[in-house]
Amino acid sequence: MKALKERILRDGRCFEGGILKVDNFINHQMDARLMMAMAEEFVCRFEGERIDKVITIEASGIAPAIMVGYRLGVPVVFAKKARPSTMQNMLTTEVFSFTKGRKYDICVSGEYLCEGERVLFIDDFLANGNAAKGIVDLVHKAGATLVGMGFLIEKAFQEGGALLRDAGIRTESLAVVESLDNGQIVLRD
Amino acid sequence: MKALKERILRDGRCFEGGILKVDNFINHQMDARLMMAMAEEFVCRFEGERIDKVITIEASGIAPAIMVGYRLGVPVVFAKKARPSTMQNMLTTEVFSFTKGRKYDICVSGEYLCEGERVLFIDDFLANGNAAKGIVDLVHKAGATLVGMGFLIEKAFQEGGALLRDAGIRTESLAVVESLDNGQIVLRD
Repeated sequence: MKALKERILRDGRCFEGGILKVDNFINHQMDARLMMAMAEEFVCRFEGERIDKVITIEASGIAPAIMVGYRLGVPVVFAKKARPSTMQNMLTTEVFSFTKGRKYDICVSGEYLCEGERVLFIDDFLANGNAAKGIVDLVHKAGATLVGMGFLIEKAFQEGGALLRDAGIRTESLAVVESLDNGQIVLRD
Repeated sequence: MKALKERILRDGRCFEGGILKVDNFINHQMDARLMMAMAEEFVCRFEGERIDKVITIEASGIAPAIMVGYRLGVPVVFAKKARPSTMQNMLTTEVFSFTKGRKYDICVSGEYLCEGERVLFIDDFLANGNAAKGIVDLVHKAGATLVGMGFLIEKAFQEGGALLRDAGIRTESLAVVESLDNGQIVLRD
């Protein structure tokens, strides 16, 4: 997606360890109009699919996911990283975060992720695919069907994309980062 | 706001200790179209004000805030509850959560909350007003100006609303809960 790629090249910054910081327009400060344009791009790419619900993970996935839900006219559920005391019928799975260097649980209420539902997962980054694997597990536990996964930015030099596509999951990324070597952002054409 | 009030009465549930659970359409599963309608109501209420930026706190504030930012055509910044390792020029303040029974820090980068900016705070709930007080402090530290605060739901039986209005802060709530006694949701007309 052209507008996103241009913005990454203009405002993205590289940090050591393959970190791409886009907190000027996605992860901390958010460009709301770009967010809607990205959501519309996902809606185009998944056109023709029946989608009953959008699912994401707090916190950075919420903004793109709510825009996709708005355009599709379907509810959006965000998996939580903390276990709320009042959650009933909870589905839970463990996710390992490379960024944080530790495991954490994500959970979703079985009231809002149900058998037979066709769900689209939306998130900001696809890197090692650990959060995505967690969602695959939650969707499986619920007896729902995963229509596909949409990411704003995919890091092609990490294994997540290959892992999801090899598992037969339709995976759409709006910008693909080929490398961040020597502090230089290289995007796929 | 009529649509929100009707939804609260239909889908809201009371729990002990004055807890109103609206995770069917706001806090866990989100109704994206209602979220946009609520954002439009905030835009109407704050019409005529110059607003440079919307600010919120992760995670439940992000969905309404991004919709308000979209309609206003301004950036949205969310204060973070964890201190990111790569954040520069960080502004931080302490918030006490009654729900969680503990203090936590919220922080925002001084790159994205700047001197002279006129900011609108949007959040899901106004109860004791502790998160709102944290934002007042962050805005003050940045040298920015708080245009006002908008909440989806205000609990009138807790002190936050009085506290903010007594401090001269324009506070708009789309639904006001008068009481949750005996498991009964009573809304202000």
